[in-house]
Amino acid sequence: MPFVSIRITREGNTAEQKAQVIREVTETLQRVLDKAPEKTHIVIEEVDTDNWGYAGETTTELRRKSAGN
Amino acid sequence: MPFVSIRITREGNTAEQKAQVIREVTETLQRVLDKAPEKTHIVIEEVDTDNWGYAGETTTELRRKSAGN
Amino acid sequence: MPFVSIRITREGNTAEQKAQVIREVTETLQRVLDKAPEKTHIVIEEVDTDNWGYAGETTTELRRKSAGN
Amino acid sequence: MPFVSIRITREGNTAEQKAQVIREVTETLQRVLDKAPEKTHIVIEEVDTDNWGYAGETTTELRRKSAGN
Amino acid sequence: MPFVSIRITREGNTAEQKAQVIREVTETLQRVLDKAPEKTHIVIEEVDTDNWGYAGETTTELRRKSAGN
Amino acid sequence: MPFVSIRITREGNTAEQKAQVIREVTETLQRVLDKAPEKTHIVIEEVDTDNWGYAGETTTELRRKSAGN
Repeated sequence: MPFVSIRITREGNTAEQKAQVIREVTETLQRVLDKAPEKTHIVIEEVDTDNWGYAGETTTELRRKSAGN
Repeated sequence: MPFVSIRITREGNTAEQKAQVIREVTETLQRVLDKAPEKTHIVIEEVDTDNWGYAGETTTELRRKSAGN
Repeated sequence: MPFVSIRITREGNTAEQKAQVIREVTETLQRVLDKAPEKTHIVIEEVDTDNWGYAGETTTELRRKSAGN
Repeated sequence: MPFVSIRITREGNTAEQKAQVIREVTETLQRVLDKAPEKTHIVIEEVDTDNWGYAGETTTELRRKSAGN
Repeated sequence: MPFVSIRITREGNTAEQKAQVIREVTETLQRVLDKAPEKTHIVIEEVDTDNWGYAGETTTELRRKSAGN
Repeated sequence: MPFVSIRITREGNTAEQKAQVIREVTETLQRVLDKAPEKTHIVIEEVDTDNWGYAGETTTELRRKSAGN
């Protein structure tokens, strides 16, 4: 009975990519831990770059610096 | 001191329905576990159907198949 | 397709109480939001009082002060 | 290796305020627990007032009553 | 910058199985979404069967009924 | 009405350290976002090193390699 929450930044992830992540993680949990897919729920939570902090800065700021190089 | 997170798909849940869920879950926690309502926080997190996977597929895809029957 | 996480302090909650909370919250989600019980997962996460902070203090400290009154 | 989720109501929090929260919480975890900033992720999850319940009511309703005083 | 939380019931999952789940999910996120492994954190949260409810009952109760068949 | 979840590895964090983190994060939220401490809940969730994956490996394995240098 797994519940998986995947938090990522909201930066152009397509519906196809998200569907593939869901498919593969479900498959991993079934093969490795014997979890039934019909009891496996996976939620992808996309977070604005202003709201994700890493190393003390927002991802918005990190992307700006990185683009400036 | 309860904190409750309720994740559901974003599919037309009304403000009235959400208020009723909040009211009832708060009441359950007070009656069964003796938790004070003024220390009980409940968050409803609505998730796009593209982002909720079940049985290896997105809910968007599951709804499409179900509608096709 | 609801997933519910209920965080409470670990302070002698019995298996019977936890089962009743699970039963009632599942029933609320079914009646108010038309959610199927066989797609409803509820997890109760019990947290040590040293690890739950409220109003800037741990619950351990709050309980000690309250007992001293 | 900390991961911090901060849930607050969505009520006009500015990018500057959110950046400051991220900066300060990262600093606290580094100074008190010796956690490396480059392994510290902080996510701010803003919740609509219709979806945050407190004391059995939505925050929308609480704000309305409070404004009426 | 992904953070993944995987909640499963605590029912004899070995360290090897958990390491394999971590390895595979990290690889999926890198290949499908181009996420750097050194920014990918995955937490496996094991939940006692008394504390995981499904279809309105605890997993403890569901396992007992299933064993009785 | 903030709710903060802080996930860290379980590696000897003392009650004093955890109390200090709770005190400081509550103070940050009050000063920067004007959040009332009596509506601020903070939970510290300590995770076994076998259950925290980083860069595709468990923290147990990472610590072993690091100690071997």
